[in-house]
Amino acid sequence: MNKYRITVTYDGSGFCGWQSQPSGNSIQDALEAAVFALTGETTNVVGSGRTDAGVHALGQTAHFCIEKDLEPKTVIGGLNAHLPRAVRVISAEKADENFDARKSAKRKTYMYAMYRGTPTPLLDGRALYVPKLDAVAMRREAEKIVGTHDFAAFMASGSGAKTTVRTVYETRVEERGNFVLFYVTANGFLYNMVRIIAAQLVKAGSGEYVDLSAILASRDRNRAKETAPAYGLYLLNVEYE
Amino acid sequence: MNKYRITVTYDGSGFCGWQSQPSGNSIQDALEAAVFALTGETTNVVGSGRTDAGVHALGQTAHFCIEKDLEPKTVIGGLNAHLPRAVRVISAEKADENFDARKSAKRKTYMYAMYRGTPTPLLDGRALYVPKLDAVAMRREAEKIVGTHDFAAFMASGSGAKTTVRTVYETRVEERGNFVLFYVTANGFLYNMVRIIAAQLVKAGSGEYVDLSAILASRDRNRAKETAPAYGLYLLNVEYE
Repeated sequence: MNKYRITVTYDGSGFCGWQSQPSGNSIQDALEAAVFALTGETTNVVGSGRTDAGVHALGQTAHFCIEKDLEPKTVIGGLNAHLPRAVRVISAEKADENFDARKSAKRKTYMYAMYRGTPTPLLDGRALYVPKLDAVAMRREAEKIVGTHDFAAFMASGSGAKTTVRTVYETRVEERGNFVLFYVTANGFLYNMVRIIAAQLVKAGSGEYVDLSAILASRDRNRAKETAPAYGLYLLNVEYE
Repeated sequence: MNKYRITVTYDGSGFCGWQSQPSGNSIQDALEAAVFALTGETTNVVGSGRTDAGVHALGQTAHFCIEKDLEPKTVIGGLNAHLPRAVRVISAEKADENFDARKSAKRKTYMYAMYRGTPTPLLDGRALYVPKLDAVAMRREAEKIVGTHDFAAFMASGSGAKTTVRTVYETRVEERGNFVLFYVTANGFLYNMVRIIAAQLVKAGSGEYVDLSAILASRDRNRAKETAPAYGLYLLNVEYE
């Protein structure tokens, strides 16, 4: 068997998320169909983790095993020839047999994109519009989640995670003109974690009183009820040892 | 009669351009239909100029006259309620009877958006992908068109312009990460002028030999045959006295 590691970018708008579904309308389904079209082999494409319906990726990582021995270049070109335009394989390499896109992942970085000023349909489905955003206030709150904490207050129900403790290595709030971009790097994320944190940052940036330290310490989701929409969220990259 | 001046932003992807067409699928048609839905009045919505099929706008300016005397706020909300989501009125004000969105326009600024690095479907229909772009080389060429010149070499046929002389006040090539944005401000533009210039800048940025001074001086379109795709072009704003 030959194991391949691939990096994938996608516009999540038209998909039901990463994870394979009976509808067949997931990113994983699209990739497995492309592998089959290219090789005639049925395989399981394992991602670094699920992304929800509507969430985008610039650098999702996945692996799969096939009998055929193909050049990485052939894997990229061959899969892209069979994938819908909204999903693109941007790199491929042969992977060690011990590599597992999910289990070997050490750090992931997400970005949540917001913009202020004048709304435009050109950013529909790409970034969350908020009339006013104070990036300084957002940055102050975002810094409070750095470190190893119990993030139970920032988890949607239905995830079945064994532990709600995660380590956030870094947060960043960048202003680029009217864009405000929230970056967060962690060893892993709970279900909807980035979108729940982003919703609190929007409140902080809009002038509402928010204290992420207090919400974090409460471990109570009722203290952070909102979830920012999926379309503002981008999985930027996944890091391995 | 009451005259209104409006600023409009649109995602040009699904439209046949600004100018009214028998198909009815133009931005102008959409606006005239919205005015009719709001007021029951048939009017002519006059834009600062045409934009081609697929070209976007962040700040197109237009005017129209109606019998009804409406608050500008009502014009914004009322038109947006009847417009397709891809077209948004972002400001409205009562205009002087002498104001003409087309004839009174003094300066217009367009942006042509390109990006390099890794292509992503997230930018489909929004920016032109070019594997490598040297912004310094592009900036050097872009500066050569500043001033009052005969831009005949940069005009597509079929425009019927009385003169091919225009004044370019400023050009700017901005790098933002992997984005390379070309801005150009002029007193007016010939048919496809920005897209023809952008195509030459792409060549210069990709390492090909290009000399915009020589092309300009030749006044020969055969020296600048390429036209960059419409979807990378944005009408940013129109200035009046």
